[in-house]
Amino acid sequence: MDQVTELSYALDTFYFLVCGALVMWMAAGFTMLEAGLVRSKNTAEILTKNIGLYAIACIMYMMVGYNLMYPGDGALIEGVLGNFSALGKADNTAADVIASGGETYYSTLSDFFFQVVFVATAMSIVSGAVAERMKLWSFFTFAVILTGFIYPMQGYWKWGGGFLDAAGFSDFAGSGVVHMCGAAAALAGVIVLGARKGKYGKDGSVKAIPGANMPLATLGMLILWLGWFGFNGGSQLALSNVENSNAVALIFVNTNMAAAGGLVAALLLARAWFGKADLTMALNGALAGLVAITAEPLTPSPMAATLIGIVGGLIVVPTIVFMDRKFKIDDPVGAISVHGVVGIWGLLAVPLTNGDASLGAQLLGIGTISAWVFGMSLIVWLVIKAIMGVRVSEAEEYEGVDIGECGLEAYPEFTKAGE
Amino acid sequence: MDQVTELSYALDTFYFLVCGALVMWMAAGFTMLEAGLVRSKNTAEILTKNIGLYAIACIMYMMVGYNLMYPGDGALIEGVLGNFSALGKADNTAADVIASGGETYYSTLSDFFFQVVFVATAMSIVSGAVAERMKLWSFFTFAVILTGFIYPMQGYWKWGGGFLDAAGFSDFAGSGVVHMCGAAAALAGVIVLGARKGKYGKDGSVKAIPGANMPLATLGMLILWLGWFGFNGGSQLALSNVENSNAVALIFVNTNMAAAGGLVAALLLARAWFGKADLTMALNGALAGLVAITAEPLTPSPMAATLIGIVGGLIVVPTIVFMDRKFKIDDPVGAISVHGVVGIWGLLAVPLTNGDASLGAQLLGIGTISAWVFGMSLIVWLVIKAIMGVRVSEAEEYEGVDIGECGLEAYPEFTKAGE
Amino acid sequence: MDQVTELSYALDTFYFLVCGALVMWMAAGFTMLEAGLVRSKNTAEILTKNIGLYAIACIMYMMVGYNLMYPGDGALIEGVLGNFSALGKADNTAADVIASGGETYYSTLSDFFFQVVFVATAMSIVSGAVAERMKLWSFFTFAVILTGFIYPMQGYWKWGGGFLDAAGFSDFAGSGVVHMCGAAAALAGVIVLGARKGKYGKDGSVKAIPGANMPLATLGMLILWLGWFGFNGGSQLALSNVENSNAVALIFVNTNMAAAGGLVAALLLARAWFGKADLTMALNGALAGLVAITAEPLTPSPMAATLIGIVGGLIVVPTIVFMDRKFKIDDPVGAISVHGVVGIWGLLAVPLTNGDASLGAQLLGIGTISAWVFGMSLIVWLVIKAIMGVRVSEAEEYEGVDIGECGLEAYPEFTKAGE
Repeated sequence: MDQVTELSYALDTFYFLVCGALVMWMAAGFTMLEAGLVRSKNTAEILTKNIGLYAIACIMYMMVGYNLMYPGDGALIEGVLGNFSALGKADNTAADVIASGGETYYSTLSDFFFQVVFVATAMSIVSGAVAERMKLWSFFTFAVILTGFIYPMQGYWKWGGGFLDAAGFSDFAGSGVVHMCGAAAALAGVIVLGARKGKYGKDGSVKAIPGANMPLATLGMLILWLGWFGFNGGSQLALSNVENSNAVALIFVNTNMAAAGGLVAALLLARAWFGKADLTMALNGALAGLVAITAEPLTPSPMAATLIGIVGGLIVVPTIVFMDRKFKIDDPVGAISVHGVVGIWGLLAVPLTNGDASLGAQLLGIGTISAWVFGMSLIVWLVIKAIMGVRVSEAEEYEGVDIGECGLEAYPEFTKAGE
Repeated sequence: MDQVTELSYALDTFYFLVCGALVMWMAAGFTMLEAGLVRSKNTAEILTKNIGLYAIACIMYMMVGYNLMYPGDGALIEGVLGNFSALGKADNTAADVIASGGETYYSTLSDFFFQVVFVATAMSIVSGAVAERMKLWSFFTFAVILTGFIYPMQGYWKWGGGFLDAAGFSDFAGSGVVHMCGAAAALAGVIVLGARKGKYGKDGSVKAIPGANMPLATLGMLILWLGWFGFNGGSQLALSNVENSNAVALIFVNTNMAAAGGLVAALLLARAWFGKADLTMALNGALAGLVAITAEPLTPSPMAATLIGIVGGLIVVPTIVFMDRKFKIDDPVGAISVHGVVGIWGLLAVPLTNGDASLGAQLLGIGTISAWVFGMSLIVWLVIKAIMGVRVSEAEEYEGVDIGECGLEAYPEFTKAGE
Repeated sequence: MDQVTELSYALDTFYFLVCGALVMWMAAGFTMLEAGLVRSKNTAEILTKNIGLYAIACIMYMMVGYNLMYPGDGALIEGVLGNFSALGKADNTAADVIASGGETYYSTLSDFFFQVVFVATAMSIVSGAVAERMKLWSFFTFAVILTGFIYPMQGYWKWGGGFLDAAGFSDFAGSGVVHMCGAAAALAGVIVLGARKGKYGKDGSVKAIPGANMPLATLGMLILWLGWFGFNGGSQLALSNVENSNAVALIFVNTNMAAAGGLVAALLLARAWFGKADLTMALNGALAGLVAITAEPLTPSPMAATLIGIVGGLIVVPTIVFMDRKFKIDDPVGAISVHGVVGIWGLLAVPLTNGDASLGAQLLGIGTISAWVFGMSLIVWLVIKAIMGVRVSEAEEYEGVDIGECGLEAYPEFTKAGE
């Protein structure tokens, strides 16, 4: 039966790698979504930010973050840090796997791969909210600290077996640990940074600034939808028996249904409220459905998952509107609403279908993570502001950050700079 | 050996989920293809249509369609409909799987996931054909009925074990059930709707209306090509032994070769006929190859699959031209030709390589499905026309449906509305 | 245990097919990358080239190339060539698999699928370098010969068990056999073709010609990054035990880390050198990291893989600059630098982490492959030039090859032809 044990290990490892590749693909989703929702003069810079933060996240998490978040599994990465020997790529041996009697059932490196793409997701959420006015290198500096320290600490509290996990906080695939975390960091950044020039008039007027490329934004949302099957589906962490493969199948279905519910709800609400089938609201509705189901994609029935997504879609539309018009928080892509506010909804919805979860523990998790990430991020943003500055000059903002930061235009033949 | 049985179940379920995710990705393919082939002033609306129809298809098929199409498996969804209890997510237990001796070999929910993305594909075909002039909410109303009723009924006749299946009609992955079905519904829509303003002059002249974004259209075709590996490959419905995995491998190869054959054939024919290597014809040629092989990707050799694709490519070019110039059927993306006419070719080609198929049964299937879908769709379109109207006003059509229906522009900085 | 053997075969076959699908997806990556980096007036043509070459590669490799490269496995394709009988789809029987005792462990057709997408990758590299001035049908003619003969011959020398393999040349996934091969063919093409009009002034000035659509180019890079998991991960050729699945996991991690390292290094170097965070350099840096790790993604630790990628990123920036400014080799997308020069770095880096490799054997492989591919390609390009010509007319180049070759524009509403 040793061959069966090995085969089972191989299947679980492969499942992890396929899901990890889907989550990596979400980096392309965020990149396209955000690039489509900003103006053309700031597009090259947001592309640079998104690909840069992904690379930074991978390096920081390998060198520091994974060790902080999963200290028990750290031998792997400890080996990497100090030296370049074989230790850095040590993995479970066949003998260990067989001797473990099924407890060691997938490659440690496949786990690292799956985890590292999650960190990048959290950081991607920030880039959209601070778009069109932040200095590129200040952003990258923040990325180093979030992915190397702020994210892994709270990740440890839940997924690394820390005190939130012990307290019964329930967050299956990361509505809190990943999405609300990214939104909290983004909110701190937006507060330190301020709104885009011309966004809010002195007379209280609010100017809508439409994105330059809606097909790109739509592609981004669809990429995220696809990638989310890996994000939630992989978080079952096991596939190779009937129970686990049924669980993964249910998670796929529920993830899909929640996104569908969120999309339809946001589209109908926008139609009723604005009189138009607002495409950006539909995109955010689908993402809201996905964020909402992420805290618990396994215990709801498909019908319940659809409803959880619908509520997410109904929350995100007014949240985006009020965040913009009432609170004057300038979040060009709506990331704080989608990932933060709806992330909280997802966490609060867990006890509705999961008997092991309690409202108290959920509130503790929400409070802890948001306070930690928002507080730490605020400090880091303020330090960065003091040392490097966070905001481009007014002239550069007017001309577009592409020329100033990247030295090139995203669409040199379609528009004129500064238009 | 129970562990082996469970492992086998897990692998087949995972294969289903991976193939399903690839088919879901086809939604992005249709979205990009159609968004690239319409004018910029109608792009936001076609994006909205495509993502909206996908969400509607998922919800309607969960609530109604799956039950109609696979009444035997319906316990799953029956549970969902009436209540929100655990019934909605019931799946095979490990004990059942082991007791079944290999007959129950994958998760019911993974089957639902795979099936639901097929429905969306059928509906996606319609949106391209009626582009640039249909009212958004009339379109969505039709989507509700097609995905909840019209599609599942004919799906039941073949894949649910109905009379077409009993009569020997052969349609492996859906040249008929999915592609011809979508095209028949589209044709009825186009007839009720009429051509775009300015498309056909009173003097018999035909105006070519080029798509606004060819890289997007090309991306869409490539996404569809990738997704089709899941569409055809998953339709083997099993993977986990030598025979089935060989079959899936052959299906992957044949799907790829048919697309390659269709592309080259259409490109050469366009070069010979028009004197130019028409990119849109190359895109449609590849899709024609894919549609053609979908009815039977398992019995042809790779060389025969290439030929089946080549014939598809040779059919699609003149069909698009004649449909437009002779019959004045205004199908902006050529969907009726690609999915309908070539779908028929695919169904007729089955007996050439599959000894179990007969021309008579194929003709019966073609006649039944096209009559049912076309007839029902015509009625539904006419009812919608009577109640809600199907066509936007002339002013809105001139200005572009984006502003009228969605209240925003797809590319606000690149073009001027109404241009 | 026969069921276990079959299950293992099914998993390895499925792994091969999934990796092959990811590599096929790289065709979309090259297409988007190149379409984004050329001017809008030449975009439709480069789209046509990329999808056309993929189709040609599939057909030529099926009919000729696979047989040349793997003569031992040729029975499969021999059958295809001469006739359309069942021979063309013959695969291993369950009895053979079980009798082989694990030696025959995946479907031959899945191997063909994986190999055929590699050929297309090599050819894709060429299209970027010769962009914006080459005749379409001359390009396709070259594609027929490269994919049917030039590539398979050198592929046989290494992967088919030929003399380079016997000499100890080490090239795990194809830094040499695929990437340097493509770059050598491209270099020969560029030399025969000459630079774009206006690129190099008579006074020695060099004009920068920016790409028209940076989001598209960024999307292309991200698609390639994703696809590379299949490219390198699938090259382990086996998954279904602990050792092999660990190896595949390590390859995924190393591939990801090398890309991240290359991206960050190129971005920092560009920032230091030009004072701007040049997005195109970041894109090429990531690709350089990927090319560099491709020759040996299994023996380095993740930290070492990051360093190998970093060196790739540091090499590619000055190489692109000097190739352009010093040597006046006009390669619009930097393909020769990324795939050729960095491919050589990847091959030379193998002995640093793999004790079985030697510098001598690596140099032999580099010399042999580059001499063979460059020499043969030069001859073929010159013959094509003599018979069909390779370069479009000056008027057509000015107007854009889209109108001349394809009869349509890529973005008819965004720009004016010839702008």
